[in-house]
Amino acid sequence: MSTTRPLNVGLIGLGTVGSQVAERMLSWGPQLSRRAGVELCLKRVLVRDLTKRRSIEVAADLLTTDPSAILDDRSIEVVIEVAGGDEPMRSYIERAILAGKHVITANKVVMAKHGPELLDQAAGKNVDVYFEAAVGGGIPLISTFRMDLQANKIERVSAVINGTTNYVLGRMASGSTMTDAIREAQEAGYAEADPTDDIGGFDAAYKLAILGSIAYEIKVRPDEIYREGIEGVEPVDFRYARELGFAIKLIAHTQRHPGRVEARVHPAMIPLDHPLARVEGAENAVFVEGDLVGQVLLVGQGAGGRPTASAVVGDLIDLARSIRRGVQSRPSFSFDDRIGVIPIGEVKTRAYYRIRVDDRAGVLAAIGQVFAEEGVSISSFIQKDAWSHDQTAELVVTTHPSLDASLQRARERMAQLEPVRTVSSFLRVF
Amino acid sequence: MSTTRPLNVGLIGLGTVGSQVAERMLSWGPQLSRRAGVELCLKRVLVRDLTKRRSIEVAADLLTTDPSAILDDRSIEVVIEVAGGDEPMRSYIERAILAGKHVITANKVVMAKHGPELLDQAAGKNVDVYFEAAVGGGIPLISTFRMDLQANKIERVSAVINGTTNYVLGRMASGSTMTDAIREAQEAGYAEADPTDDIGGFDAAYKLAILGSIAYEIKVRPDEIYREGIEGVEPVDFRYARELGFAIKLIAHTQRHPGRVEARVHPAMIPLDHPLARVEGAENAVFVEGDLVGQVLLVGQGAGGRPTASAVVGDLIDLARSIRRGVQSRPSFSFDDRIGVIPIGEVKTRAYYRIRVDDRAGVLAAIGQVFAEEGVSISSFIQKDAWSHDQTAELVVTTHPSLDASLQRARERMAQLEPVRTVSSFLRVF
Repeated sequence: MSTTRPLNVGLIGLGTVGSQVAERMLSWGPQLSRRAGVELCLKRVLVRDLTKRRSIEVAADLLTTDPSAILDDRSIEVVIEVAGGDEPMRSYIERAILAGKHVITANKVVMAKHGPELLDQAAGKNVDVYFEAAVGGGIPLISTFRMDLQANKIERVSAVINGTTNYVLGRMASGSTMTDAIREAQEAGYAEADPTDDIGGFDAAYKLAILGSIAYEIKVRPDEIYREGIEGVEPVDFRYARELGFAIKLIAHTQRHPGRVEARVHPAMIPLDHPLARVEGAENAVFVEGDLVGQVLLVGQGAGGRPTASAVVGDLIDLARSIRRGVQSRPSFSFDDRIGVIPIGEVKTRAYYRIRVDDRAGVLAAIGQVFAEEGVSISSFIQKDAWSHDQTAELVVTTHPSLDASLQRARERMAQLEPVRTVSSFLRVF
Repeated sequence: MSTTRPLNVGLIGLGTVGSQVAERMLSWGPQLSRRAGVELCLKRVLVRDLTKRRSIEVAADLLTTDPSAILDDRSIEVVIEVAGGDEPMRSYIERAILAGKHVITANKVVMAKHGPELLDQAAGKNVDVYFEAAVGGGIPLISTFRMDLQANKIERVSAVINGTTNYVLGRMASGSTMTDAIREAQEAGYAEADPTDDIGGFDAAYKLAILGSIAYEIKVRPDEIYREGIEGVEPVDFRYARELGFAIKLIAHTQRHPGRVEARVHPAMIPLDHPLARVEGAENAVFVEGDLVGQVLLVGQGAGGRPTASAVVGDLIDLARSIRRGVQSRPSFSFDDRIGVIPIGEVKTRAYYRIRVDDRAGVLAAIGQVFAEEGVSISSFIQKDAWSHDQTAELVVTTHPSLDASLQRARERMAQLEPVRTVSSFLRVF
């Protein structure tokens, strides 16, 4: 392949990320081409609406609403997909691969659900699929697992990987209600009009599926990941957490066990001196432990147009270098199908319960009895606020590590106790 | 090149790092070979003493004391150098390159002093030089600059990159004297018998030279970096720092200016809420700012046999993949010779002075006069302890950003003032 012929790129999506990708390619051409070793040419851009006003200037004849104008253009060697969502993007990516095009995508949904299959197809067609931008914006994660940590057995990955929930929990820690905090996040551009994907932990589970698959070279499916959103966290929990020495974060955690891996997304109490407790606002942080390297922490802006474009264009330069040399630069993937995900009930966790009870004798004995029968050892048992108007009190119980199934059963059984009004909160302690 | 023929590796050095590299290669052969796509064979190991007892078992016939047994063995395609120090290692690396061998090195001195020349030679011989392990142990730094952040203009790199001084300063913050803290660091294995290289900031300057060269694609020479060690920091400075809201760290900092870069290593007061203020013990942390990605923080164990071996063997796998395909996988380097380092005097910094003065009228006026004449604006001016036995008092002055030359002149001129006994500390504020 001649080094003088430019590398034609088709871009799918010209939104927050796409416009930053186009902007860097159009305004920084010579630098990018020097680093890539080949001229990079933005040939077509797929958009939904040709007439929409945009923050950057893209020549009108580059724009198209017809996916075939990119996917069937044989002169286009690289397709960048930054539109997001499952279909039709999965199909577009598949079509690009089958047409012998390399793909760069920021699409966490497609990569989490269909990544192993698409990577297999790509290997069969001898093309590459890059997806650094699908997790953690511009933080170097995929490349770190695929390259730098290859000499390691990865033991665990723990991350605060959803900026929206971290922003919302941060506002709640400062006294906001969840409703107000979500509205603030929407106004600040951190949350969608429908925030379910973030608040419910789905976004974090997609990202954890990708990280876990790459870290352990297995197929971690998003629907195999235990997932709980932050909907149940209440303002008072932040006060109790602080008193106990914890912050509350939505944690995405995966850990290697003999023959299986643990993978879960849920709100958790994290010790204040743990680096993940200090992740602020919309930041992301990923904590990796390898058997040689020990613990490595990677922190940065996990979303947004510019950080994500940094990862996309970084992938493009790396890909262009390898295309110029006529080879695949990145290792192909292999996934071990024999390693599965452990059901959450079999995982050992610690729990925090906030319980509203009748303020009378015998309550503690009844609750203690439930934990004893479930084989759960209690770490702390504190009576917090009491209300004279209805003769109730609030108890906070934290446990030592136990089977999660036992902790969940204890929760259900306590809720059935006659003097217990409600188990208001149930959070894992990290 | 056939994929069935093993890739022969020669190892120079079997100390802390080398024994971990050998151990992983010998005990993890199948996994490494699968990831590399080729069998990796440890063919020879250069040691100084054949009879020395070692923590790992290496077959006696692998060991040699003759460098030619590796450098002149045409069957060895990759030389790993983890012995350290300038000569003879620079010559060994050069010989390996000129013999057409690829090189992986953890040698920060050689890469800081001779990196650009060795990389030029390697490009001429169409071989690769990998040096991820030369900076920050297993933290993915070189690869992050060379790959992930390629779409960025790097604006600044700030790092706590010397574990020994960070350990020593941490102990001093807890009340130790420097002498005790250094002895503790030696006992914990964090400091050499002669700690000058660390304490004097030389080690950090080597690492900053490498990071700055890669980040900006220019030649940053270690002797162009302004360098001050931690020798002048006294226990009382930690108390005053805390009262002012700062930690004291040895900082390595480089920043882009129009046509030039700033590059300096010195102890600094760092605001307690800055991530670098929280780097504990022998940990390293590197803070990178790119124009697209924003701020990225990378943290991990910056030294030690296992983390460094993680980087070395990670490089080996990446290199093996590219050798198997008969190409260079990593981009070759280019360095812009027109961009130089700004002399420290022309850099804007902030300063903290601790000054022992005669406790009498007129002192503040005299000191204020010096700052005014140097055009330095004062941020805070606080009288701390006073001693009645000799009628002296201690003043702490912090400034707003000013030319470093003016701050240094103010220091010299204050020392000449009649009521000033001594300027006990002079630290930059970060």
